[in-house]
Amino acid sequence: MIAAIGNSSDRRPIVALAMGDPAGISPELAAKLVDSKTVAAAARLVVIGDRRILEDGARIAGVTLDIEEVESDVIGAADSPVLIDLRNLEPADVSIGEATPAGGRFAVENFTLALTLAHAGKVAAVCYTPFNKKAMRFAHPGYDDESRFISKLLRLDGRVREFNVLDTVWNARVTSHIPLKDVAASLSKEAILAEIGLTVDCLKRSGITGPRLLVAGLNPHAGDGGSFGMEEIDIIGPAIEAAAAQGFDVSGPHPADTVFLTARAGGYHAVLTMYHDQGQIAMKLMGFDRGVTMLGGLPFPVCTPAHGTAYDIAGKGIANPRASEEAILLATRMAVSVPT
Amino acid sequence: MIAAIGNSSDRRPIVALAMGDPAGISPELAAKLVDSKTVAAAARLVVIGDRRILEDGARIAGVTLDIEEVESDVIGAADSPVLIDLRNLEPADVSIGEATPAGGRFAVENFTLALTLAHAGKVAAVCYTPFNKKAMRFAHPGYDDESRFISKLLRLDGRVREFNVLDTVWNARVTSHIPLKDVAASLSKEAILAEIGLTVDCLKRSGITGPRLLVAGLNPHAGDGGSFGMEEIDIIGPAIEAAAAQGFDVSGPHPADTVFLTARAGGYHAVLTMYHDQGQIAMKLMGFDRGVTMLGGLPFPVCTPAHGTAYDIAGKGIANPRASEEAILLATRMAVSVPT
Repeated sequence: MIAAIGNSSDRRPIVALAMGDPAGISPELAAKLVDSKTVAAAARLVVIGDRRILEDGARIAGVTLDIEEVESDVIGAADSPVLIDLRNLEPADVSIGEATPAGGRFAVENFTLALTLAHAGKVAAVCYTPFNKKAMRFAHPGYDDESRFISKLLRLDGRVREFNVLDTVWNARVTSHIPLKDVAASLSKEAILAEIGLTVDCLKRSGITGPRLLVAGLNPHAGDGGSFGMEEIDIIGPAIEAAAAQGFDVSGPHPADTVFLTARAGGYHAVLTMYHDQGQIAMKLMGFDRGVTMLGGLPFPVCTPAHGTAYDIAGKGIANPRASEEAILLATRMAVSVPT
Repeated sequence: MIAAIGNSSDRRPIVALAMGDPAGISPELAAKLVDSKTVAAAARLVVIGDRRILEDGARIAGVTLDIEEVESDVIGAADSPVLIDLRNLEPADVSIGEATPAGGRFAVENFTLALTLAHAGKVAAVCYTPFNKKAMRFAHPGYDDESRFISKLLRLDGRVREFNVLDTVWNARVTSHIPLKDVAASLSKEAILAEIGLTVDCLKRSGITGPRLLVAGLNPHAGDGGSFGMEEIDIIGPAIEAAAAQGFDVSGPHPADTVFLTARAGGYHAVLTMYHDQGQIAMKLMGFDRGVTMLGGLPFPVCTPAHGTAYDIAGKGIANPRASEEAILLATRMAVSVPT
């Protein structure tokens, strides 16, 4: 087991790929990504997981694995994908289509190492194949979502925020995994302004120049002039005005039930929604399963395919790696610092 | 001006069509509906408005009007469409693309008479071409929405509820035009149960046998087992169980961001959502502009096209009457009592 030494003039960012839940399509996706020419052209991949599970995935996917092993402290700059083999999951403990403590522990360990390496500047970005939340909770009680997990793990003070990217439309949100009854009280001019700034920053880092944002209202018909709620007048409108005064290209508050029609028609880069389902209902209907989820606000990008573990088609070799490839490509574009 | 006397064995329901906002596409739509063979085959139409505005609409639409006038108390049973000419709007007072007090008064008067006739059993259903809410408020301060207007006008105690119908999918909602912050507190097992009952009743009246309902949750991921809100466990789940115990074919609570994907795939007749945008975001993305809005819970059906006044294309003769025809066809199917 040696660290592969690559061409030091290689400009491709090093991207850690944490293997996700082993009971779904994650193993076969990981194998397909190792085999992907699209990925190889853009990134130097460091897979984190267990070689035996990855080999099972390759068998299911029908690809031949060509991957050297490295130690986590000497990942260096390999020409080809490399593997950090944690030997952390017995193949016999994998039960296709079933969320288990062993599977959750495997995913949490892989993700933790990937984040730690990125935080230490040894990789430029983190990607992962889908997690199963139930399994994650078996292994890590209190696991809410990836954003909170990362914040706690890396002891970050700033905002780790989830963005959903589908084709050319990004969806950012001011609140996420909280009860709907708490959404209105969680909104503030400052929070919206910060989210606009972060969204624009992420869009620019992904290569978009002159990002244009649409901001949704909170209430039916965006409050209809105060008839059905005052947040548009008291909070959202003033935040948009302040953002515009700072030079951001931003408009709203737009009624939530038409803002994605506007975005879909083109000419805009992102929709900022006030709560989870306001954006997710639209994104999923527009085909978000082939999109990418990106966690922003970190010193490095974290990306994953938007779809889930797909327990129903696991092990059949029919999993489509396209969204996972898109996740790696986005992470690569956003990886501004390239450790060598 | 005489009441046209038709064939008393005519089984087509008499449907009142209230002319809507005159500054948009309403006049040309009304003229196209008078001229529509699809409408004529299903309903005996009684147009309520002003002949001069209707004639302007016919000129724009490029159709020849063939419509007799009747008095409101002797509408009887005409073979062809008839007109109750209220002479309530000077053509000179119409300004295309502009919401005005005169336009609002016109629409409110037409709607009021249509509802009054239906309430008195003289017509079997009410339809209307699109209103402009701003104009309605000029004429009738405090105008919130059609449901509340009807409840007040007819002094109804029961629930007047809005349904959205797109192709084969209905969307009903437990709350509608209220601030988002008030949604959670407005939910109750009783309200959800009543809405399920009303939805099934309306579906059956429209001709659907064995209606199957999907019920959305309130919170992200339908609360994710109580992690992001308790309403699914405390209120929505028990309401669904109670409905199922009463023999309704109903399931949920389903996550709001995938429930319309399930509905769109087929096999279900309606999605019950907890609040306005939960359904409207989905319905509009799926093409609800060609759908129908139906007000249920009244002794008679009230239907209108889902799209708005379309000020931007008014007067050009390009307005598509398809959704308005669908509105009349749905009203006709639901008109159980046919006054002759």
